[in-house]
Amino acid sequence: MRIVVDVMGGDHGCGVIIEGVKRALETDRKITALYLAGKQEEIHAAMLASGLNDKRVQVVNASEVMTMEDKPTAAMRKKKDSSMARAMELVADGKAEAVISVGNTGGILASATFKLRPLPGVERAGIVTVIPGADNEFVLLDSGANIECKPIHLLQYAVMGNIYSREILGYKKPRVGLLSVGTEDSKGTELTLEAFRLCKQIDINFIGNVEGYDLFNNRVDVVICDGFVGNVVLKTCESLAMGMISMLKQELNRNPKRKLGAYLAQNALRAIKRRMDPEAYGGAPLLGLNGTVMKAHGSAREKAIMNAIRITAETVEHQINKAITDELQRANERLAATKTDVPTPVSP
Amino acid sequence: MRIVVDVMGGDHGCGVIIEGVKRALETDRKITALYLAGKQEEIHAAMLASGLNDKRVQVVNASEVMTMEDKPTAAMRKKKDSSMARAMELVADGKAEAVISVGNTGGILASATFKLRPLPGVERAGIVTVIPGADNEFVLLDSGANIECKPIHLLQYAVMGNIYSREILGYKKPRVGLLSVGTEDSKGTELTLEAFRLCKQIDINFIGNVEGYDLFNNRVDVVICDGFVGNVVLKTCESLAMGMISMLKQELNRNPKRKLGAYLAQNALRAIKRRMDPEAYGGAPLLGLNGTVMKAHGSAREKAIMNAIRITAETVEHQINKAITDELQRANERLAATKTDVPTPVSP
Repeated sequence: MRIVVDVMGGDHGCGVIIEGVKRALETDRKITALYLAGKQEEIHAAMLASGLNDKRVQVVNASEVMTMEDKPTAAMRKKKDSSMARAMELVADGKAEAVISVGNTGGILASATFKLRPLPGVERAGIVTVIPGADNEFVLLDSGANIECKPIHLLQYAVMGNIYSREILGYKKPRVGLLSVGTEDSKGTELTLEAFRLCKQIDINFIGNVEGYDLFNNRVDVVICDGFVGNVVLKTCESLAMGMISMLKQELNRNPKRKLGAYLAQNALRAIKRRMDPEAYGGAPLLGLNGTVMKAHGSAREKAIMNAIRITAETVEHQINKAITDELQRANERLAATKTDVPTPVSP
Repeated sequence: MRIVVDVMGGDHGCGVIIEGVKRALETDRKITALYLAGKQEEIHAAMLASGLNDKRVQVVNASEVMTMEDKPTAAMRKKKDSSMARAMELVADGKAEAVISVGNTGGILASATFKLRPLPGVERAGIVTVIPGADNEFVLLDSGANIECKPIHLLQYAVMGNIYSREILGYKKPRVGLLSVGTEDSKGTELTLEAFRLCKQIDINFIGNVEGYDLFNNRVDVVICDGFVGNVVLKTCESLAMGMISMLKQELNRNPKRKLGAYLAQNALRAIKRRMDPEAYGGAPLLGLNGTVMKAHGSAREKAIMNAIRITAETVEHQINKAITDELQRANERLAATKTDVPTPVSP
């Protein structure tokens, strides 16, 4: 398996990325080639500093960087020699199966869509995020790739999310729910009501509407929503989790008795932090494209990069893209077959 | 001040509501009349049981109940003698200034809109929720009244939320933010981009787009969004907060040392629970109608009802509705004055 890592555009420079690559390669035996795309001199310096000296590593020089401030589409046209473009091209040309980038999310989305093209049957790629609940891990998609969704996009996300939960997280029959404002079938917007109708017809374990209350209660394994809602939910959860941890710290520091309690219970507090840690998962795959694309957080450090590489390797290994193509084709056949049964909409 | 409490339709029966009323009246001196709308015999029995015997209380008999399962509009037409309808009528007829209900949210919205009508300049009522952050309290609206929003609705929510934060929570110059997928001005959907343009023109402290990350970091005091997003965010936060508290309990119970630590720090843990407690606030006002309408949680108990009555009295006292009418008129004048400066949209 051959993987490209776009090492530029992260918040902490390419050093931490290369350190993460080194740690991933130390334990991984499946990766046969690992390309580092970016400014050659910076990469060589960082390799020297971290002691990365693995025969599988190849440097692919790129003179430009898509920054966090760049407007994706414009930057894609102007910066032809960006590390992101070069990384995508290696996949498009069949020299690698997967790409990992810490760069501008809009840029990854735009260049991946443009260079790799969507899989057959997919209209829009979607970002999958894995979120830890108290007793399960659920996937949320779309987490921000496609903020103006059509019902058919949500159906395609249901198929993709189902596959991801099954193949990567190991849920045998993931419970797929549509995020709405109530659990009753009649609750929702025009978009979700039509998506509900579509999802009911295909061969997944569709449990209907779910609401915010259901997310952290082990009631759903795959949460489907448009990219606007998904992005807001994801970031809100991260903000609230961190906010609660700092509230807890405030409260624990109020007096010596509490401080002693906190000292004795420190492993419990650390465990909570670890369970909520966005670095643990490392990367969010952008599903639905010809090639495996993993978006790591701009602030990702060694551990996150190492984990992102591991998840990427698993995603390639489990042939997620083949499953998406096959299962979407079957879903579309089902929808076409039942189409005649659907009553024509009547205007109100 | 005269307040109606619709005591029917809650999850725990009318007894807990009446207990809450009793506790509120014990400390309140501003309320001159308090109507209890619902089934007379049940109310009398509960009053006897709780020992509620206050001259300000009057029972208004209603033979029917809007249940949680009722479809609001249909139930409103069929159940003419529901406690909710009777409660709204007391406000519509000028016999009371405010109504509190624990019933079906859709039912409250439908009957309040129908019986009370929107304030001048308001197109859609919005539900305001107050959410505790680490260092501030922010209001979120709309939290679920209006799930298919237009940009002008979001503008009206900005005006209403600004007034609520200022008058009830005491923020002098609330920071009003539009919830989006990034803080840059260009980020968002057609809906939020147009709402952004409108909000920039009126006389509020509009800080532009905010994202999920900003909510619990004391960066914004009034969060504006459509009712679908607001409802999902609100319920997700409640679910995550409870989920984290139960994760923490799990971790603290793993061994005797941690248990001892938890015992010593128990006041800190209680403080966190108290800070995150949805009962503390008690009610979410439905703003934008002729009359003050407070929606309490279906599962509200004594304390929540008592708090809801307190918040309702404050909302009436601060003449929120007069402020909404006045400030919306000024906002509309501003928008009308600047209309000519707006360039005509060009199709892409």
